[in-house]
Amino acid sequence: MTSASERTRTTITRLAEYAVDDRARLDQLLDEQLIAHVGVVRADGYPMVLPTAFARDGDRVLLHGSTGSPWMRRVADGAPVCVQVTAADALIVARSAFESSLRYRSAVLFGVCERVEGAAKASALDVLTDRLIPGRTAEVRRPTAKELAATLVLALPISEWSLKVSDGWSDDPDTDLAGDAWAGVVPMVTGYGAAIAAPDLRQGIAVPGSVSRLVDRQSTALGWSVGDDTKTCT
Amino acid sequence: MTSASERTRTTITRLAEYAVDDRARLDQLLDEQLIAHVGVVRADGYPMVLPTAFARDGDRVLLHGSTGSPWMRRVADGAPVCVQVTAADALIVARSAFESSLRYRSAVLFGVCERVEGAAKASALDVLTDRLIPGRTAEVRRPTAKELAATLVLALPISEWSLKVSDGWSDDPDTDLAGDAWAGVVPMVTGYGAAIAAPDLRQGIAVPGSVSRLVDRQSTALGWSVGDDTKTCT
Repeated sequence: MTSASERTRTTITRLAEYAVDDRARLDQLLDEQLIAHVGVVRADGYPMVLPTAFARDGDRVLLHGSTGSPWMRRVADGAPVCVQVTAADALIVARSAFESSLRYRSAVLFGVCERVEGAAKASALDVLTDRLIPGRTAEVRRPTAKELAATLVLALPISEWSLKVSDGWSDDPDTDLAGDAWAGVVPMVTGYGAAIAAPDLRQGIAVPGSVSRLVDRQSTALGWSVGDDTKTCT
Repeated sequence: MTSASERTRTTITRLAEYAVDDRARLDQLLDEQLIAHVGVVRADGYPMVLPTAFARDGDRVLLHGSTGSPWMRRVADGAPVCVQVTAADALIVARSAFESSLRYRSAVLFGVCERVEGAAKASALDVLTDRLIPGRTAEVRRPTAKELAATLVLALPISEWSLKVSDGWSDDPDTDLAGDAWAGVVPMVTGYGAAIAAPDLRQGIAVPGSVSRLVDRQSTALGWSVGDDTKTCT
């Protein structure tokens, strides 16, 4: 049940035509981005924003951090959060500075996090690890009891959210359309470069499947190659 | 002059060894990233985080938006902000899930924004436009009085800030160092793809210098090429 104040909180007031009420598109954005920006009100009343890795797990968003982190403890104790996830997809080059902007997808989720404890905590950490590096948990040892005790895992229900998507072209007035200025978009792309072994890696240990799949899949999907002698142009 | 509460606000409490007190490195991050996440406390006391394009202009950070934006008006009226700028530089693949993390640079600035008005407002908008697309202001018409009136420009002094940089390798315990698990980093890279003309672009208008320089410079710097028939591998 959504209260009137909650409706206000997720009502998109500017460029309301960009609002997208499609949970599948929200999930797509959450499953693609690695970093969320978490807003919390400090004890002194000031706003604080922290970047953190996150993972969607069904109908919740998982966060984790050290038990020594003041803001994680504050959030674990029930401070309301705003979790913002943004993708910058392209520059929109308009015929004027005023109409120039970005193609973006921007999601915001509100609520209060719950602590994830016990066996569910280790499972949630597996989800977070495999979100960053799919398949990695199967390649490494299990977390120790000490490591689990040092980690806070929090879950935010995906219930109060909004999504704003700008994916069009510049909306130039007729006088500019008739002029000589160019208009279009410049896609912004992200991906992974070739893996680099740690200086203290023992001889004879090969790049694991999780890492090579990550680099290959990303490069293939984007159709590009990083300066990497082992790859060729696609 | 920094008060005790202000020192607390920018004191890095977790992983304090990552704190970097170097204004040049802050500027480098601010000049490289296009999107900031702005935190503000809403009138109802809840936290709100909004992504927005920004530009550093000397000792201040410029933000802009519509006069119709409730959060911009709130910030213009003196609500304290937290401006967070993050670069995710690489995945740190450790020999355990627990030690795996990210290489990142994360800056946070606190303060109250001032409105930029009059002739300074048009100049500030030029800085913002040329930050997104260097050289673009010289290619397009000047903003109209109506466009300027519809835009709020805000400036946050760069005075109360902190920067946290993680740029190392995984810190695995000796028992893991002796094991068979791989460790290293996977660089995360961003760049621009080939420009795409708008469907309503009149015939015979070439891609402008600002756009072609942006795409070429970025590709050269990163040593990669996007799926683009006009480019070859570097």
